[in-house]
Amino acid sequence: MDQKAGQEKDNQQKEFVKAITPKSVDYSQWYIDVILKAKLMDYAPIKGFMAIRPAGYALWERIKEQFDRRFKETGHENAYFPMFIPQELLEKEAEHVEGFAPEVAWVTKGGDEILSEPLVVRPTSEAIICDFYSRWVQSWRDLPVLINQWCNVVRWEKSTRPFLRTSEFLWQEGHTCHRSEEEAEEEALKMLEVYRECIETEMAIPTVVGLKTDREKFAGALRTYTVEALMSDGRALQAGTSHNLGQHFARVFDIKFLDQDDQLKYVWQTSWGVSTRLIGALIMVHGDDRGLKIPPRISTYQAVIVPILTKKDREKVLQSVRELADQLKDVVRVKLDDREEYSPGWKYNDWEMRGVPVRIEVGPRDLEQGKVVVVRRDSGEKISVNRDELAAYLPRLMEEIQNDMLKKALEFRKANTNRGSDYAEFEKIMETERGLYLAPWCGDAECEEKVKDDTRATIRCIPFDQGAEGETCLVCDKKAEHSVYFARAY
Amino acid sequence: MDQKAGQEKDNQQKEFVKAITPKSVDYSQWYIDVILKAKLMDYAPIKGFMAIRPAGYALWERIKEQFDRRFKETGHENAYFPMFIPQELLEKEAEHVEGFAPEVAWVTKGGDEILSEPLVVRPTSEAIICDFYSRWVQSWRDLPVLINQWCNVVRWEKSTRPFLRTSEFLWQEGHTCHRSEEEAEEEALKMLEVYRECIETEMAIPTVVGLKTDREKFAGALRTYTVEALMSDGRALQAGTSHNLGQHFARVFDIKFLDQDDQLKYVWQTSWGVSTRLIGALIMVHGDDRGLKIPPRISTYQAVIVPILTKKDREKVLQSVRELADQLKDVVRVKLDDREEYSPGWKYNDWEMRGVPVRIEVGPRDLEQGKVVVVRRDSGEKISVNRDELAAYLPRLMEEIQNDMLKKALEFRKANTNRGSDYAEFEKIMETERGLYLAPWCGDAECEEKVKDDTRATIRCIPFDQGAEGETCLVCDKKAEHSVYFARAY
Repeated sequence: MDQKAGQEKDNQQKEFVKAITPKSVDYSQWYIDVILKAKLMDYAPIKGFMAIRPAGYALWERIKEQFDRRFKETGHENAYFPMFIPQELLEKEAEHVEGFAPEVAWVTKGGDEILSEPLVVRPTSEAIICDFYSRWVQSWRDLPVLINQWCNVVRWEKSTRPFLRTSEFLWQEGHTCHRSEEEAEEEALKMLEVYRECIETEMAIPTVVGLKTDREKFAGALRTYTVEALMSDGRALQAGTSHNLGQHFARVFDIKFLDQDDQLKYVWQTSWGVSTRLIGALIMVHGDDRGLKIPPRISTYQAVIVPILTKKDREKVLQSVRELADQLKDVVRVKLDDREEYSPGWKYNDWEMRGVPVRIEVGPRDLEQGKVVVVRRDSGEKISVNRDELAAYLPRLMEEIQNDMLKKALEFRKANTNRGSDYAEFEKIMETERGLYLAPWCGDAECEEKVKDDTRATIRCIPFDQGAEGETCLVCDKKAEHSVYFARAY
Repeated sequence: MDQKAGQEKDNQQKEFVKAITPKSVDYSQWYIDVILKAKLMDYAPIKGFMAIRPAGYALWERIKEQFDRRFKETGHENAYFPMFIPQELLEKEAEHVEGFAPEVAWVTKGGDEILSEPLVVRPTSEAIICDFYSRWVQSWRDLPVLINQWCNVVRWEKSTRPFLRTSEFLWQEGHTCHRSEEEAEEEALKMLEVYRECIETEMAIPTVVGLKTDREKFAGALRTYTVEALMSDGRALQAGTSHNLGQHFARVFDIKFLDQDDQLKYVWQTSWGVSTRLIGALIMVHGDDRGLKIPPRISTYQAVIVPILTKKDREKVLQSVRELADQLKDVVRVKLDDREEYSPGWKYNDWEMRGVPVRIEVGPRDLEQGKVVVVRRDSGEKISVNRDELAAYLPRLMEEIQNDMLKKALEFRKANTNRGSDYAEFEKIMETERGLYLAPWCGDAECEEKVKDDTRATIRCIPFDQGAEGETCLVCDKKAEHSVYFARAY
């Protein structure tokens, strides 16, 4: 690299460093800076709405693909239901309407006509889907119904944050009907496990799973199960939920089937969903002060080739990287960045910020030596690799990076999970480093409420694998019923 | 098959035949019968809305996949924009608002709050996307912008028909920005060709392409290009459109870039879309009185195996078809229908109605002889095939069926395309067999209007490859400017 290019690189690096607020200075601003700089989204001219830009949407497409494959492998089919729900249907299930009515958008006019009954834009689709199911399900032969929908939903939020809480977001919602309570419970837990495994395997995000308390459960559900992830600022994020709806909706929507014993019975239902907020989790779990870090399995590009072009060797290097891109395209998702209006240094920073797992630098000297420089985004490590070994090396490296990213996130969670029953200590931790706090709880909503008032922390879940034998509640003196994870949450 | 089963088959066949109204009796009713019977959709409790059921949505997923691949191969990326458009933005482009305002749904309340400015649910997204583009495009380096969106849109329709015209539908809308008029024109024509080729190759639907007249063009476009297909009742269907938007939107939304010559210039834009109405085309081009016929390339299942189970050989046959399904799963998308609550005859009819290209029957005698019976859905032909040749045979057969279906549709179009300039003959044909009618036209909107009033036919397009040298207008006596395709249309 000549001196001028070196100087330019320095300047551009400074510009980048300046552009992203460090996490330690202002975590919220860091998050916004990364999102805007990496062009994942942009704010809409309507408060609380956003556009998901191509870089952000490509992440969503890959995430979606991973989940969709698993849904299909577990026997589910996709469908599409109307986005509008007549007011009357939304109001059928009492808890459901109470939970959602305050945050829906109302359509009151269609064309020139004032609607006699206003429509709500779906905040979730139980009400409209159950109306269809009441006609589709007649016999035990029609069961189970295993349907999923990928769509947009609207919840009119007062306070929003890109990807994490926006008035419109994209998600999937599974809606199933079963013959028995056991089968519905099995389904709810099965999809919870699909979520946990997919988020861990594909996104390299470890989670804790468990049951929501009554206070936190879905409006209309019998039981809500949840997958909770820990962000790098110590706050928890609900990454996905799976609900056993019992027969609440079946009864009010009259979803009955004639069983083999000739009895008319109500079905047992579940619903479950993950959304574009997973993109927020991805950013906050893995990102650093240089920008995004995307795990190889869901990264749009896994490796980017940046040629270092000098006047003298321009053609030779260009030809060589084109060949390289061609050789690698069957083993990794590779992008050749041969734009000449940007310097190599600018590109290094740009692709680091976009979180591409690996950068491959190829200059005239590398060419002579038959080598390339591979730079890992996750660790910053620079590795000199023989060019003819690259095609074999990269897939292994991708696996290694994926594993290392998960390991790092697991270690962070371990280091930020406390266990105890000292309320003063708990309060202090929730105020300072936060993280997860596993503590015994008596099961009373009052204690849960007190914690929220005192610390803003909530019970994220009641894990399946933690007892509370012989312990007393973190808050009161009563006997503990469960050990639960508390955390401040998004 | 024993006698009882044979009797049952006959009864069930009668039931099926009864259930679908023949095309010749009532084409509209045939269309609805097929759609409902094949469970492609169901009517929503809101007039003009529908749910797309799993069988219908699976078609859409495969259609979508074929288009999406081509969009990406031509350099486009997907993104997602807000579904709501502030009234003020919709009203910026005069022709656009005039075209769409009468048919939009209005959101006037969000949560408990009456909105100070009402929002429209997108009928198409030019207005909201151009607002973003005005911020995203600054320099010539930002061009071209090649973005596509898959989403739902709402147009409040007075008269609806499943898939063809519903108040909510799914579609994709490409929105691009370019440096020059030539580049935008090239893009509009490139995407028109992508549509034509994809619809022909994947869906086996031949089309005619050309320019829309001013009367029929998109509200706000400079020029609209269209892909028109001929349905089996002789009516045309607009299957996709591609618009050269010129600088109409760029000027009112202020989308400017600093060009390399240091001049601020407005961008040149295109937009283009296809929708779930393609499912309607698929049904009407290929379907018959027994139900759907899906071309192999987009059929969810390409072959369904139906075992013929007798008490004696039940286990043997079941085991054998399971092995067969396993052997075939890498060469075709195969479904084993081993449900025991339905008879083989019932399944034959059911899968024929659902349009699966090939049925494979396996009974005890076939087993002994090492053969299977392959039945083509498109021709009804029954072919005895050696079981060990099946894996090699089926992919070839799929190609053959795909080609035959396209050929048949082409022949139908040929037989139903007339050319002439006799107005009385034209009127009669539009009243009776309909089809496409290629005729010279002077270019005046008045003649176009008169045709519509007299015959309900419209100009579907001005094809690229047809002159009108020395001819006079079909309607008036003036010199013809173009030869155009007239048809009654959906």
